[in-house]
Amino acid sequence: MRSLGLNVTIVGVGLIGSSIGLAAKKRNLGYVIGVDRDKSALEQARHRGAIDEGTVDLTRGVRAADVVIFCTPVDRVAALVKQAAEYARESAFFTDVGSAKGEIAAAVDAVSQVSGRFIGAHPLAGSEKQGGEHADADLFVDRCTVLTPTSATKRDTFQAIESFWRHLGAKVRKMSPEDHDRAMACTSHVPHLVAAALAGILPKGRRELAATGFRDATRIAGGDPELWTPILQHNRAAVLAVLGEFEERLSDFRAALTNQDSVRIDRLLTQGKKVRDALGS
Amino acid sequence: MRSLGLNVTIVGVGLIGSSIGLAAKKRNLGYVIGVDRDKSALEQARHRGAIDEGTVDLTRGVRAADVVIFCTPVDRVAALVKQAAEYARESAFFTDVGSAKGEIAAAVDAVSQVSGRFIGAHPLAGSEKQGGEHADADLFVDRCTVLTPTSATKRDTFQAIESFWRHLGAKVRKMSPEDHDRAMACTSHVPHLVAAALAGILPKGRRELAATGFRDATRIAGGDPELWTPILQHNRAAVLAVLGEFEERLSDFRAALTNQDSVRIDRLLTQGKKVRDALGS
Repeated sequence: MRSLGLNVTIVGVGLIGSSIGLAAKKRNLGYVIGVDRDKSALEQARHRGAIDEGTVDLTRGVRAADVVIFCTPVDRVAALVKQAAEYARESAFFTDVGSAKGEIAAAVDAVSQVSGRFIGAHPLAGSEKQGGEHADADLFVDRCTVLTPTSATKRDTFQAIESFWRHLGAKVRKMSPEDHDRAMACTSHVPHLVAAALAGILPKGRRELAATGFRDATRIAGGDPELWTPILQHNRAAVLAVLGEFEERLSDFRAALTNQDSVRIDRLLTQGKKVRDALGS
Repeated sequence: MRSLGLNVTIVGVGLIGSSIGLAAKKRNLGYVIGVDRDKSALEQARHRGAIDEGTVDLTRGVRAADVVIFCTPVDRVAALVKQAAEYARESAFFTDVGSAKGEIAAAVDAVSQVSGRFIGAHPLAGSEKQGGEHADADLFVDRCTVLTPTSATKRDTFQAIESFWRHLGAKVRKMSPEDHDRAMACTSHVPHLVAAALAGILPKGRRELAATGFRDATRIAGGDPELWTPILQHNRAAVLAVLGEFEERLSDFRAALTNQDSVRIDRLLTQGKKVRDALGS
């Protein structure tokens, strides 16, 4: 396949950033520059072939970019986008990969220099693993990447980033930032918080009794708090709302147990099982 | 290896019962009889080599047994043990594989005919899968099986069942029924209820956005309510206590989010991550 000749700049070469780099190189998308504060992460990404070149200097890294992808914790994205826009070409597109979209979209749309040229993206391909060493060129293949345009997003911005993700093998889906954030509160953010709470109350002396079921149920709690604290903060309102629904469901269980109402316990378990069975393995 | 010449009777040839049968046959423990109400389950178990012979008649199935292992939902164990003891030889040992031990132990110990000859066992090798078709001869290898003797349990009962599980490759651990039940409330029963609640509140329209993390976190919710409702009922007191601790932890998260206290959110996530990281993959 001929190279598409894109200049791609990836800001933050952790698991997702490096996976995007590997995926872009494998599929001949063009020249990939990595930007990171951590020189050894850049060196590792270059060594693995996730980037062609690395720099700690954002302004230098974005100068020739056609697409700049921000793969940092969500609380750093908006400021970095604004900074990058000052040094990038006017034709450059900006996107991110964060798990919470509303706050970033609002902050970026408020800046005339980038508004329209930025679109949020969220590849649903996270992992409890961290770091570029776990990067995978096929991480996004056949997985959903959600794009979250706003009324400010220009059509060619959407098309460029949609095409980019399609090239990496992703199934692209469009949602508003608000819909995305409400959905993720259900499917990801509250489950994360719940897993951390389950793991957090396990007494040390009982760890060796934690079998496969507990390990599965709490696996996501291994995620990096440096990523997850900002996500929960950014999506606070939706997380609190879903947490409320979850707490209500726990109260239903509590009442059924207290009343020794086995019909009700069975019904609550069956309801959960039906949803889980529908998801497949 | 020469056969140990044991007569083993397995009551209930689902996932665990059939796995015990396969494991016993593979390791030449002796002759295995399966007892089940479901003839097709018996036929399948025989076909797969998990049992040598199947019968729907408990009294016939236990007559020549050296060891009778009850692999039914926990609410049926005590009554079946009593019934079996009337027809089994006086030298026979009885055991089960249930996930809640206190109520069964108390019920069995109260019956002079079996008291002393019964010991509860719990192989920590469950699965969200059901049915003998998923049985595995090595399901118990290097996994922990907890034995829960009471003051009534005779030494030779303990030794016989301990030796049985060691032959199947399990690491045997001894706990009181009460300690076991409190530990399982933490490591298994509350996580199960939590997974069911998480899955239960997922709206249908958001299912396709549920990625690996959600699938992991809710996998155990696929377990059979026919098994799990009685487990939660049997271990009600400990489950309610641990559920209380869990709800408190959720309240901590709620307060931290409401107050936008990112230091506190980070601390709660970090606490969970530390425990989860200590468990390994």
